[in-house]
Amino acid sequence: MKNSLAASRYIPLRKVGILGGGQLARMLALKAANLGLEVHILSTNEDDPAAQVVRHWHRGDPNNATDLKKFFAAVELVTFESEFYSGHMLGEVQDAAQVPVLPPPAAMALLQDRKFQKLSLLESQVPTSEFTTIDSPEDLKKTMTYFPQGLVLKKRQGGYDGNGTFIIRNTKQMRATLEKLKIVPDEFIAEAFVPFKRELALMMARSLKGDIVHLPLVQTVQTENRCDVVWGPIHHSGLRKLITKLEKFLERTGYVGVIGFELFDTGKQLLVNEVAPRVHNSGHYSIDALATDQFTLHWLALLGFEMHKPQSLGKAFVMTNLIGLNEQAAEFPKDLQGNLHWYGKKENRKGRKMGHINYTGTSVKGLLKSALAERKKIKNLGPR
Amino acid sequence: MKNSLAASRYIPLRKVGILGGGQLARMLALKAANLGLEVHILSTNEDDPAAQVVRHWHRGDPNNATDLKKFFAAVELVTFESEFYSGHMLGEVQDAAQVPVLPPPAAMALLQDRKFQKLSLLESQVPTSEFTTIDSPEDLKKTMTYFPQGLVLKKRQGGYDGNGTFIIRNTKQMRATLEKLKIVPDEFIAEAFVPFKRELALMMARSLKGDIVHLPLVQTVQTENRCDVVWGPIHHSGLRKLITKLEKFLERTGYVGVIGFELFDTGKQLLVNEVAPRVHNSGHYSIDALATDQFTLHWLALLGFEMHKPQSLGKAFVMTNLIGLNEQAAEFPKDLQGNLHWYGKKENRKGRKMGHINYTGTSVKGLLKSALAERKKIKNLGPR
Repeated sequence: MKNSLAASRYIPLRKVGILGGGQLARMLALKAANLGLEVHILSTNEDDPAAQVVRHWHRGDPNNATDLKKFFAAVELVTFESEFYSGHMLGEVQDAAQVPVLPPPAAMALLQDRKFQKLSLLESQVPTSEFTTIDSPEDLKKTMTYFPQGLVLKKRQGGYDGNGTFIIRNTKQMRATLEKLKIVPDEFIAEAFVPFKRELALMMARSLKGDIVHLPLVQTVQTENRCDVVWGPIHHSGLRKLITKLEKFLERTGYVGVIGFELFDTGKQLLVNEVAPRVHNSGHYSIDALATDQFTLHWLALLGFEMHKPQSLGKAFVMTNLIGLNEQAAEFPKDLQGNLHWYGKKENRKGRKMGHINYTGTSVKGLLKSALAERKKIKNLGPR
Repeated sequence: MKNSLAASRYIPLRKVGILGGGQLARMLALKAANLGLEVHILSTNEDDPAAQVVRHWHRGDPNNATDLKKFFAAVELVTFESEFYSGHMLGEVQDAAQVPVLPPPAAMALLQDRKFQKLSLLESQVPTSEFTTIDSPEDLKKTMTYFPQGLVLKKRQGGYDGNGTFIIRNTKQMRATLEKLKIVPDEFIAEAFVPFKRELALMMARSLKGDIVHLPLVQTVQTENRCDVVWGPIHHSGLRKLITKLEKFLERTGYVGVIGFELFDTGKQLLVNEVAPRVHNSGHYSIDALATDQFTLHWLALLGFEMHKPQSLGKAFVMTNLIGLNEQAAEFPKDLQGNLHWYGKKENRKGRKMGHINYTGTSVKGLLKSALAERKKIKNLGPR
């Protein structure tokens, strides 16, 4: 591997590549500019959100080896906005091009498979729900008897925002699922259904030097399987203990960069539900509410710079997602109070994440009330 | 003029143009992205700071009518990073293209000439130093007798960062100035020299709807005629009264957008020294220290949106400029604590503004100490 990563102490002329052109890549690119990084984007469509905010957009598919090789020749360091590219292919291109990919492709490959994600959490004694692999309809039926609260059937690869996730709490739901789903070996796991009190999320970052920081704990609300509202900071007596285990997890997996942990708060304990090896929707509030946002933190971690402590600037923060309700263009009131972050997608569409709004202030309760009222005034965006 | 400006309530697809490609245009472009604006840049060099952070860069000279006309055809609204383009030409292109320029070209034309800038301040009874025009060496000599503390000779057009400014406090300095400077009619004014206690600055913004907001008052320190350090907020008993007069000034000149006022604090009163009809170096701290930064505020003002109150997020803030000391590449310590904003200029150069660093916290004194110590650790940047 080129030693430029460790050797350079000169931020300004570093050329960095991002795989993917969505909103996460867009916000990574905008924050990279502050650090003087020259950002290159590899994505398929020139209307992509990230393609609009960089000079160097490369048309190509991050899952195509030829496109990757060409892209790697233009940059000195590569990161990604989605964990659903081929970790194996990325590792090979990285080694051939001598251009590092961070987070490491091996960590991506591990975490993009829910079976190995679970196993690696258990290896570091991170509390998480029980699980097993499911290889046939028979297998699923038998497994039901071991999970009296029901189970959650999940595709091992490629699931997001509820896609590839099936909640099965009784025989009827099982039958319905089996009717629409073909279960073949090596494709599914089943997790014990967790009756949670609330969903929380925790973003952490581990730098190239091995330093680890975490962002404030937040509460998240999902609507129709999509992140709807996030607020914080949340105080929880179990947090310190969980962080210690997650630190071990990050060290063992050799992780570098920002990482998101979706959590269940059962009232008794904090369980890790899912891991996203990248910047995450539950951290978008950080752009306005913390001294250092998750996107800047990701770059600092990858470059081996000391990561700033991501301190809260106010006492409370709220983020509302803006999700398409239909195909009509969004219309904003002229007196919008929150800080808008719009992704520049060319078309509004039902269920599509179009942007988000951040609010900071002194109480979550007050902010939440005005934030939800404000979102109602925006035409064609929700959730309602 | 197209009525798109008033009629559109849909931010996402608005195409906006910025004249100029320097760091002010770059930061305007980065903040425009959050609002979903599609930013077009007109500048001469593709390595320009702003050219690197947008998809739509147009090669051309903002002082060339043909280049302007072509550029105006691509956008729906135009703003600028420098007041030293031709206000007259801009007004003509604006009217022909039916694409509004904001701040209005008439206001730019007025304020880019120090004579009319002074007259328009006086018209609104804004306190400022005495002045007169200077049309010949004889004229200058006679004028000296009326300004016992000395005078400041200034070019009416095109001066910035001390360029075109000559301090003359005695006969010897006058002779030296006259040796290197040719004084012809209509090119110079002389202002009474003001023995100030400190230099302050105030950023304000007036929106298309006529609303006015102001940022916190700040103290500025110039080194070798360039902005070096800025801190605040500064409390001053004369501020409220000054703001009332400046509000009148903004209304009378029909100003729209962010505007910077450089002030002298004489210990007795606040005098307006110079006016910059644009975002300004003394407002860069706002990116990290205020709920809404000066660049976002400029766009909100131009689009006719309600401007957010630019509230402080912390109790104190400090900004240090990073100015080239030589032609060697800058080298940053890995443990940089402040929030870096690097402009991506391809070459370091003596006296060139290369970036800035923002700090927020609880006391100016503490922040200033660590900020200046931190800047010393950066190689090839100063001031030292």
